[in-house]
Order: sequence, then structure tokens, then C-alpha cells
Amino acid sequence: MNDARICLVTLGVEDVARSVAFYEALGWVKAPQSVESTAFMVGEAIVLALWQRGEMIADGGEGELPAGSGSAGLAVNFTSEEAVLEAYEKAVAAGARPVKPPAKVFWGGFSGNFRDPDGHLWELAYNPFFKLDAHGHLDLLASGD
Amino acid sequence: MNDARICLVTLGVEDVARSVAFYEALGWVKAPQSVESTAFMVGEAIVLALWQRGEMIADGGEGELPAGSGSAGLAVNFTSEEAVLEAYEKAVAAGARPVKPPAKVFWGGFSGNFRDPDGHLWELAYNPFFKLDAHGHLDLLASGD
Repeated sequence: MNDARICLVTLGVEDVARSVAFYEALGWVKAPQSVESTAFMVGEAIVLALWQRGEMIADGGEGELPAGSGSAGLAVNFTSEEAVLEAYEKAVAAGARPVKPPAKVFWGGFSGNFRDPDGHLWELAYNPFFKLDAHGHLDLLASGD
Repeated sequence: MNDARICLVTLGVEDVARSVAFYEALGWVKAPQSVESTAFMVGEAIVLALWQRGEMIADGGEGELPAGSGSAGLAVNFTSEEAVLEAYEKAVAAGARPVKPPAKVFWGGFSGNFRDPDGHLWELAYNPFFKLDAHGHLDLLASGD
């Protein structure tokens, strides 16, 4: 599986229902894995996560996030905690600034955040509830319950 | 072709060569279509464009962009100028804030920018030099010259 992927783009949004309506109008489909504070919108080979901005900030470990695209992050999903740790170490060795080292997180997965040399936010995650297809893309509609 | 896609994530960066080295260490491959101010890094079904931040700001029509993820934008590519116009009108009708209505741009393509209801930046583009595959993803290595 190629690690040069983006499985999910997370957008911090004030009103999740308003954002779901906006992205549905553009063709994105709300996945059954969505919860009240986070809608997972399925597209071609990528998922847009519309995450309530206050919760995204609380989870991020940095105290605040700028509005607009400043509350956007890119995520790569892996099939194990070990794979997340390896990829995180590789990123830090390449010059990434650690933000939140990989650890168990409140939603039941395992993830870490870093920023690239210009401050662009990335998350590396293992989500035991989300399946990846053979190309390493999230397969939410197929794995929906 | 499903319009719920992200073909390209653009990251505004200060030093393109430094960013290329960082993302190459993470497995991304620099496409032959790259130019001095913009490197196109090919991943699985998605491209990371590392665009020199000053040029990204000059092109954006907004005068400034915050640092870090505030200088990130999501892009969808289409196969014609007409398809860009249609998708742009659809987004505005759904509540997007117009930033730069679709028009011919300096790099030889046709593109427009909008912000979603929370200010997340999107670009819709027709790039006559970039091929799309059957799923609507950029096919840079295959179409590289």
C-alpha cells in the first residue's frame, strides 16, 4: 500500500448540518458512520470529514485553530497502530513538527498529528471502525453498518 | 464522472525545494509537469501541489492568506471550461461565497475559486495540460511529457 495518500480531508465547521447540506448539494454522500459532531462525506477515493470546529480544536492539542482553511487538516489512515507509529516517526525524521504523538484517542482509534515545514496540519490514524480498500482509500459506504 | 472529488490539494509553501524533499521522504513522487514555483507531487488518486506561497496569494484575488493550513486549498479538475462554469454556479447556488469567478488564468487554464460556508477554500479548474482518468483523478505520471 502506497503511503502517499490522503484518505480524508477534515474541515472544521461551525454548523455541521449546514455544511452537510452544502456538500450534499455538490454531490458528496453522507456516510452511515457519521455522528452528531462529525459528518463523513464520501467522494471518489476520498472522504471529507465535517467536524464541529470546537471539538476539532479540543482534540488537536494546540489550543486554537484559525478560521477558514486554517481549520483544515489532511489525514492518512493505516491498518494498524504500528503502521501509524512507523509513518509518524518517518515524518518527524523528515522534518515534521510533532503536534500530538500517536496515542489512543477518545473516538476509539489511535492517531497522531504533525505539521509539515510550513505548518500544514496532518493526521495519521488507525480507525478500527473504518475499512481501507486495496489502494488504501477509506471504504465507508461498503463498510457502513 | 462523479463531481464529489478532490483532485489536488494545494499547500502554500515558502521554500518549494524544502517541501519537495519533505514530501519525497514520505513517498510522494514529483511529476514532470512541475515548474519552479509549483511542484506537483503524485500520490494514490490525489496530487499535492506545493505552490510558492507568495504566488498563490497573488493568484488568489484575496490579498493575503494566513500561514500554515490557512494557505491550503482543495481543487477539483474538470474536462472543459463549460464544466467548470456549471460546477461553480452549482456551488454558489448551494451557498458558496464567490472569490474569483471562473476565467482564463496565467498558467494557460481556466479556473475559479470559492469559499464554503465556513471559509474553506476551493478551486474548480480546467487544465488543458493535465489528463483526468476515468474516475476524474489527475493522471500526471501517465500524461507527463
